[in-house]
Amino acid sequence: MTLRMTKQDLEGFLIREFPQVGTDFAIDALSDAELTVRLKVAERHLRPGGTVSGPSMFALADVSVYLAVLSRLGPVALAVTTNCSIDFMRKPAAGVDLLCQTRLLKLGRSLAVGDALLFSKGMDAPVARATLTYAIPPAR
Amino acid sequence: MTLRMTKQDLEGFLIREFPQVGTDFAIDALSDAELTVRLKVAERHLRPGGTVSGPSMFALADVSVYLAVLSRLGPVALAVTTNCSIDFMRKPAAGVDLLCQTRLLKLGRSLAVGDALLFSKGMDAPVARATLTYAIPPAR
Amino acid sequence: MTLRMTKQDLEGFLIREFPQVGTDFAIDALSDAELTVRLKVAERHLRPGGTVSGPSMFALADVSVYLAVLSRLGPVALAVTTNCSIDFMRKPAAGVDLLCQTRLLKLGRSLAVGDALLFSKGMDAPVARATLTYAIPPAR
Amino acid sequence: MTLRMTKQDLEGFLIREFPQVGTDFAIDALSDAELTVRLKVAERHLRPGGTVSGPSMFALADVSVYLAVLSRLGPVALAVTTNCSIDFMRKPAAGVDLLCQTRLLKLGRSLAVGDALLFSKGMDAPVARATLTYAIPPAR
Repeated sequence: MTLRMTKQDLEGFLIREFPQVGTDFAIDALSDAELTVRLKVAERHLRPGGTVSGPSMFALADVSVYLAVLSRLGPVALAVTTNCSIDFMRKPAAGVDLLCQTRLLKLGRSLAVGDALLFSKGMDAPVARATLTYAIPPAR
Repeated sequence: MTLRMTKQDLEGFLIREFPQVGTDFAIDALSDAELTVRLKVAERHLRPGGTVSGPSMFALADVSVYLAVLSRLGPVALAVTTNCSIDFMRKPAAGVDLLCQTRLLKLGRSLAVGDALLFSKGMDAPVARATLTYAIPPAR
Repeated sequence: MTLRMTKQDLEGFLIREFPQVGTDFAIDALSDAELTVRLKVAERHLRPGGTVSGPSMFALADVSVYLAVLSRLGPVALAVTTNCSIDFMRKPAAGVDLLCQTRLLKLGRSLAVGDALLFSKGMDAPVARATLTYAIPPAR
Repeated sequence: MTLRMTKQDLEGFLIREFPQVGTDFAIDALSDAELTVRLKVAERHLRPGGTVSGPSMFALADVSVYLAVLSRLGPVALAVTTNCSIDFMRKPAAGVDLLCQTRLLKLGRSLAVGDALLFSKGMDAPVARATLTYAIPPAR
């Protein structure tokens, strides 16, 4: 699956299309095999105790698989999340960003499936894993 | 499963324990069989086009099952989400609140499982459904 | 969503199309709102200790949502399971059949989503719940 | 996580504890990082058209994560599946065995989470992926 967008393309797309949350994320790495997206953890992503909230982890996994799909289809596509299964396995570390390693397992004509593994920056054990399915609208 | 908290107890708990998001939610109904939580949809919950964002729907389902567990265990418990599976089925309507009907399917000693069905206020067809598992820490 | 098949139609379809497993299942009830499918529990569905195996519960949920989709589309459709999330909550009772109550939450042009709640016959508390997504091929 | 069982131990355990299905599976590889279990595909695993059935794929993923947990805990444990999310992405090839590559993402005191990626032998693209959670009973 050839890449049709660069790291810069993806970051520009995020900021343009999702003005409210686009700047929360950075693209740390992009290759044929894997995409790494970072959540720049700020006060608004935290729960009492200083841990990153569940919805913020969901948002990171969701945007990551979305960008992985876009990086192959180009910025015209309007894919829609249809399903997410997420396991929260460990408490994220306080005070560090959250990284999401994403692999596309399938990119079909109408459905794409991606795996996301979330880590607190600097830690080896994943804090969460998610699988997301996106519906891809028919080409016009 | 007897209720140990009232609607007012749950709303008070939310505002006290989750100062950042607690006021986003209201308890519309609470009975032995079902809990209805409402997301008071505001600008910050929206995506371009005016639809409620996926993370906001996840947050509503997550807090709803959490509150359903608490309503039976009382406010001392510190349950933690371990798994969520969510299906996004329809686009939420713009400009209306989102309702979440929640049923507890299991309340065991160490795991609780709850079902959540999300509706745009005034619509019959659900916009999303989710099932969440919470780990309940051993009583001290 | 009008029904296009009767209980007898569904049972005949199962036996004809799935000769290896079709007779494992019976249709106990079918209405606009809900379909109840029964797994006629036999030796081959059991695990040591006499409990129904996980794969047998998965098979019951899978066939139930499939039949719920067919009951609306008619027997020509060739829907394919794309996703299943299942929670095993209690041990099935030994020596009794397993019932699956199924509701379609969405029947779109390309995706259908159904909820399945599994009970040991005669018990009130569900042994498992599942949500399945089916991809519906474009009409020819 | 040190291994406490060998390939031979796992195969012996399967045959002893699951006499009805134990011989369906073989352990192809076992290391600290990954376990590969093979479903020896036979007539009873097939659906019309010669493709491996959904319940057979579920069974392979389920037994694989179970064995991955056992390989670390030893054969005394009695872990129970509590949740499975599975995505069916491609049709399995006819006439070949199915391989399941399994990694444990978490092995906690009370919950274990494992990822399973299923391939038709000889193919590169996965046919399915699954994540399973097991509850581990308290040590006696």
